[in-house]
Amino acid sequence: MNAPMLKAELAEHSVIEDLFARLRALSSDGVGISRVAYSDKESEALDLIENEAKRLSLAVERDQAANLVATLPGTDKALPFIACGSHLDSVPRGGNYDGAAGVVAALMVLARFKRGNFQPRRSVKLFALRGEESARFGKAYLGSSCLFGKLKRADLGVLAENDGRSLAACMSDVGVNVDKVASGEILLDPTTVAAWIELHIEQGPILEARDLPIGIVTGIRGNIKHRAIECRGEAGHSGAVPRWLRRDAVFGMCELIANLDSHWRTLLERGHDLVLTSGIVSTDKNSNAITRIPETVRFAMEIRSQSKETLDSAYELLQAECAAVSRERGVSFHFDQKIEAEGATMDASWVQRLGDAANRLQLRWEPIASGGGHDAAVFANAGVPSAMVFVRNQNGSHNPREAMNIPDLIAGIDVMHASILEAAML
Amino acid sequence: MNAPMLKAELAEHSVIEDLFARLRALSSDGVGISRVAYSDKESEALDLIENEAKRLSLAVERDQAANLVATLPGTDKALPFIACGSHLDSVPRGGNYDGAAGVVAALMVLARFKRGNFQPRRSVKLFALRGEESARFGKAYLGSSCLFGKLKRADLGVLAENDGRSLAACMSDVGVNVDKVASGEILLDPTTVAAWIELHIEQGPILEARDLPIGIVTGIRGNIKHRAIECRGEAGHSGAVPRWLRRDAVFGMCELIANLDSHWRTLLERGHDLVLTSGIVSTDKNSNAITRIPETVRFAMEIRSQSKETLDSAYELLQAECAAVSRERGVSFHFDQKIEAEGATMDASWVQRLGDAANRLQLRWEPIASGGGHDAAVFANAGVPSAMVFVRNQNGSHNPREAMNIPDLIAGIDVMHASILEAAML
Repeated sequence: MNAPMLKAELAEHSVIEDLFARLRALSSDGVGISRVAYSDKESEALDLIENEAKRLSLAVERDQAANLVATLPGTDKALPFIACGSHLDSVPRGGNYDGAAGVVAALMVLARFKRGNFQPRRSVKLFALRGEESARFGKAYLGSSCLFGKLKRADLGVLAENDGRSLAACMSDVGVNVDKVASGEILLDPTTVAAWIELHIEQGPILEARDLPIGIVTGIRGNIKHRAIECRGEAGHSGAVPRWLRRDAVFGMCELIANLDSHWRTLLERGHDLVLTSGIVSTDKNSNAITRIPETVRFAMEIRSQSKETLDSAYELLQAECAAVSRERGVSFHFDQKIEAEGATMDASWVQRLGDAANRLQLRWEPIASGGGHDAAVFANAGVPSAMVFVRNQNGSHNPREAMNIPDLIAGIDVMHASILEAAML
Repeated sequence: MNAPMLKAELAEHSVIEDLFARLRALSSDGVGISRVAYSDKESEALDLIENEAKRLSLAVERDQAANLVATLPGTDKALPFIACGSHLDSVPRGGNYDGAAGVVAALMVLARFKRGNFQPRRSVKLFALRGEESARFGKAYLGSSCLFGKLKRADLGVLAENDGRSLAACMSDVGVNVDKVASGEILLDPTTVAAWIELHIEQGPILEARDLPIGIVTGIRGNIKHRAIECRGEAGHSGAVPRWLRRDAVFGMCELIANLDSHWRTLLERGHDLVLTSGIVSTDKNSNAITRIPETVRFAMEIRSQSKETLDSAYELLQAECAAVSRERGVSFHFDQKIEAEGATMDASWVQRLGDAANRLQLRWEPIASGGGHDAAVFANAGVPSAMVFVRNQNGSHNPREAMNIPDLIAGIDVMHASILEAAML
């Protein structure tokens, strides 16, 4: 490694650290990071990246879904462009890297191109997307889904988990063309996009466990979600109603989840890919009491699998167990809107290209399936050849202790840079 | 039944209906009744009863615990007095009769004495107590516990479930002498009280099932409560962490409660008296998300039994099961302050007197154990001979659909009236 290279690398390392420090400062909530979908904090994060892109003399704009787009123009404007990036929103009290790492990586790739005076044949565009996390509105990939006309009018009426405002209102606040989104208009013609390349922290423990700085994603798990299933029983005085006359909503829910857990173990033993999570649980704040048999409890339910068949089977099990618990306990289960996110297969030639680049860079890597969903699935399902680089991370994601080593991120940037450099000339 | 009797009965029926209608009107919350402990609504209910007592020319005062006391003076002031009444607070979104029925009954007993120009030898006092329900501060029987120096300084620092204000501050607002309460001073010398007679709706389904208008209570179930047990695991991305690496707080809590439910069934089969309730459950509103493995969930736990031994055994089972789930799932359980309420045995001679009166009135009744706790337990455990009349009620209590038929209440008033008439002359 020669001296100028080393100097450039050190400079990039500190630029990256500085960017994350500033993103952290603007969105710290005292416990973790909160840049929730279509919030002011999310907008401030977009502004921060926009300013950096301007400093690199990139052309910047907000698309009709209010995502940030920064362009390094190609010499042949008629060719489909290469898009790279990720999202800037986070879950409430989440970490600083889930999403932002991919946007920073894309910015670094464009910075290297600028620094090297690279003139690509195809334009290369950075996308800093909004609303990837489902925490606020139940549905994920909002920013990318807008682009391909994938949101339904009903989705826009959904009310925010935190403040009860509608998605349409929150989108409108930040400048989304809500009418076009509601009508399902295609805002980004997928045939104009040659590829979507997204870097993301792994969010799981696999790369860390295998001591690999990066992985190349082969596919993304699909999922079925309910923001709230309500178990309804009957209220009563906790001391005065004997067990056989009770219709206790909390005991009903607990039996349901314990039964599902038991099925889950069995399905894993049979080799199926599956995860189950109930991340939000609550009795009714307005009526619950220590001495009242709870008449209702609401709980979220999420099922993920790489296999559509396993996903559907697990969903059928959920419904069958709800029916069984209802019969036994005199409770009933009421489901809100079912939210489905398709899984996706990554583009084989891009997986190859990224892997080849990693090999040339003598980086240790493995192919990996993505447990979490990503905007890449939306691009892929819209017909855009899509691929992802995972960066090893510590302590998982969606939590304040989320961590990542900058050299691992730079390894991922190296792979993206080499691959896009090559493809942008094709 | 002669005409004047009928007329008086009809008049009392409409007076009672009117009282409940006015109590309902002042404390309706749109769903049920909310007169929570040491709230303005509770105070308004005391004011309403105070005004009625004044109209009957009874001497009214607020004791140092800010309970309402109305006195029909006896001819021999040196004799211990007979106290009757109940509480006026309710759980949030509760019903109109739990507590208030006993205060209205005591008022009607005194009204009958006044109407009949009855001059008792012993004074007869109505108590409209505050803060019987544990919903707001975790601890029950606050109004009566104050009287006998049973609150600890630590109890007064507990923060309200609804608005986070301390019990001391809320008590101070309504005029409680907080310093005296905190120092454990005896505000009501139990040797000056000849008896505590409390009418209450049953809160359970037994009298309704047996078609009995009233029951005479023989004893009160004790209980052990925790307002909040916290199960702590580890946050993580719901899609990216496999089952074997998860430390899911919600799955941990659900397994715990399912296991306790199974023990409960076994204990009932062996003939033990036991009820278990977890009336409040919630993941952390500030950090929970559909896509985040929940790192914490808080849940209330209440165990009730007529047997102290069963109560303690069930509590040991709870702790053993927490340890087992912790070992298996890598979660931990953290208990807040243990709140215990003693059970109590009712005074045998008063049970006899009430039963004899019911027999003379040709009322159908049975002895019954109280599943719920009552202020009568505090009086009894302070050494005051105490007894209770239960009135049949429909739909349980602690819920908005709580119901009671006025003729059943009048049957209970008849029994109290006859018994106190007799005892006040002894």
